[in-house]
Amino acid sequence: MRSPVASQKSLRLAPDGVSVLILDQTLLPHEVRTVRLRTLAQAARAIRTMQVRGSNLIGVTAAFGIALALRADPSDAALEAAHATLLETRPTAVNLRWALDLMREHLRPLPPGHRVAAAYSRAAALLDEDVAINRSIGDHGLAILRRLLRDRPAGQPLRVMTHCNAGRIATLDWGTATAPVYRAHEEGLPIHVWVSETRPRNQGAALTAWELGGRGVPHTLVADNAAGHLMQHGLVDVVIVGADRVTARGDVANKIGTYLKALAAREHAVPFYVAFVGGSVDWTLRDGVRGIPIEQRSPREVTHITGVDADGRRVEVRLTPEGTPARNDGFDVTPARLITGLITERGVCRASAAALARLYGRPVAARGSGPRL
Amino acid sequence: MRSPVASQKSLRLAPDGVSVLILDQTLLPHEVRTVRLRTLAQAARAIRTMQVRGSNLIGVTAAFGIALALRADPSDAALEAAHATLLETRPTAVNLRWALDLMREHLRPLPPGHRVAAAYSRAAALLDEDVAINRSIGDHGLAILRRLLRDRPAGQPLRVMTHCNAGRIATLDWGTATAPVYRAHEEGLPIHVWVSETRPRNQGAALTAWELGGRGVPHTLVADNAAGHLMQHGLVDVVIVGADRVTARGDVANKIGTYLKALAAREHAVPFYVAFVGGSVDWTLRDGVRGIPIEQRSPREVTHITGVDADGRRVEVRLTPEGTPARNDGFDVTPARLITGLITERGVCRASAAALARLYGRPVAARGSGPRL
Repeated sequence: MRSPVASQKSLRLAPDGVSVLILDQTLLPHEVRTVRLRTLAQAARAIRTMQVRGSNLIGVTAAFGIALALRADPSDAALEAAHATLLETRPTAVNLRWALDLMREHLRPLPPGHRVAAAYSRAAALLDEDVAINRSIGDHGLAILRRLLRDRPAGQPLRVMTHCNAGRIATLDWGTATAPVYRAHEEGLPIHVWVSETRPRNQGAALTAWELGGRGVPHTLVADNAAGHLMQHGLVDVVIVGADRVTARGDVANKIGTYLKALAAREHAVPFYVAFVGGSVDWTLRDGVRGIPIEQRSPREVTHITGVDADGRRVEVRLTPEGTPARNDGFDVTPARLITGLITERGVCRASAAALARLYGRPVAARGSGPRL
Repeated sequence: MRSPVASQKSLRLAPDGVSVLILDQTLLPHEVRTVRLRTLAQAARAIRTMQVRGSNLIGVTAAFGIALALRADPSDAALEAAHATLLETRPTAVNLRWALDLMREHLRPLPPGHRVAAAYSRAAALLDEDVAINRSIGDHGLAILRRLLRDRPAGQPLRVMTHCNAGRIATLDWGTATAPVYRAHEEGLPIHVWVSETRPRNQGAALTAWELGGRGVPHTLVADNAAGHLMQHGLVDVVIVGADRVTARGDVANKIGTYLKALAAREHAVPFYVAFVGGSVDWTLRDGVRGIPIEQRSPREVTHITGVDADGRRVEVRLTPEGTPARNDGFDVTPARLITGLITERGVCRASAAALARLYGRPVAARGSGPRL
């Protein structure tokens, strides 16, 4: 059942060893097109326009963006400028800053003449690490799914709800939220995924449905609006979502709409897990609702939508009266108290400052909401 | 600011005194087209395909559908057949049954030769009554908005969130959920409406935005997913929605997604009101979650969407990979305990069996969930 399209990589180094090949995710699921990034500007544009998206993938793309920038100019000034340019592409995901800081720290001490090779090498290592890390998330999450499956009638699938796309193509492979699902499917466990369409950009309808379909994982698409109703009727066994930023105490910024699912899950005692990699943790923040900046995106994403018509042509259509004003918050914050557990590459822990600090071997952050951004 | 399009009536008797003119709501907001109904089959089709929608308007359309049927054949058998045909068009809204039962009781005792005139006359009275009733809902709701407005800083608008379209065109005029908003706007009170797009059929984006825009009521469209985030940040002062069926104890079936808004409203102490007419109450039911049948609609409404392209042409586009399975529950049920109050033509009351029974002068229903449907 593995279709050739679904095995496309979200990002890889081109055979020339220099340029970076990405899957243009704005065209999915209707067209599978690879785009070549040769410059810093192209890398920044790919992140900004969401040709690449998902916190992990954004981080790795930014790392390669630094490498591309240094090819043109390996100076300190160019390194700083590339860091700044890439950082401002997306304000909510913290992996972006994490990857950029890591690259800068690694490269700044080196003589300019050595920086290009070192940048490619570090970016490639990040890519490999991401694959291993997400596989590890899958293993830790798999244990949870196995346990929940024991409560299901024999032969009945475990019904996992997810939101947005924290899948293979949001990462370098496996995904975060989907990693346990893919591992379970690989192990032959019966799994069924409720795919929330994830308005306004429809990453669920377009990307998660495409990924799962390509891998033969049983799934059903629903409107985001259906989450409460499905949980009320006992049709959801567990929710697993990804994260764009996690605070030191376990508040989670993720795609807009996640918070509503968390509220419904608590109401109906449905376990609610968040899967992410360590780079998504912002140790400087505690209170996510007050501290995490929420990206304001174009109102046009709400008023217009793109799909394919009966002839297979991509068409953008307007859904509203002309000139209808719209607002488009890209993310929302789910407070730690609504979260059953955090699934990370280091294992599963409660959503609390103490548990997160222990998992990552860090001092527990002091009280307070941390710096306001 | 009253545009000529927005003053279009959702339904009216044609000048010929026989056929019925409806606004085809499947074409809004992109095209304002009037459709003429001449037969029972056309009336049933208009309801089924949602050319007319909204519980009040469905009821009145069905009443005229009876009149159209009797023109062709005024016999007892034809009356029963018309009742059955119209009743099965939409399973969730109870006004449909209410209006059909009312027509049948009124007409059955009459000699067949008198039924046609009596049917038109009763249907026309229903139309007039609906206008007056909704205006009354507006007056009762206005008092609530005035009170809430006192807590807002001077000059700051009251921010009302609504869902779906319980507006003028879901009724014969005024709307239910929107009636207080239109009354407030008429009185010069500062009001701003958060319009939820209401996936999958986008009645908010297409219809409510069109109505409010036509009347000059300030509004902003948001994805359904944004409701929790906006409430979490104190940007919503009150939620008012309509209802497709209300049980004797005040559980409310309304467009899918209403329940998520109610959960978020409770979490953030945002008052949550439901506006409806007496005909929406199903006195035979108490437990709405167990008792109200939820219409399963076509998966295509989730996987495909229609809008206008850059040339103004209506185009349906597919949003998902080909063959993605989808599920499309049309409604959900919000339990009475999440509802601050019910706004009806008889006044405002708590969402409880005792309060509802008192308001409508009925005996309080016995315990139990009533007949299962």
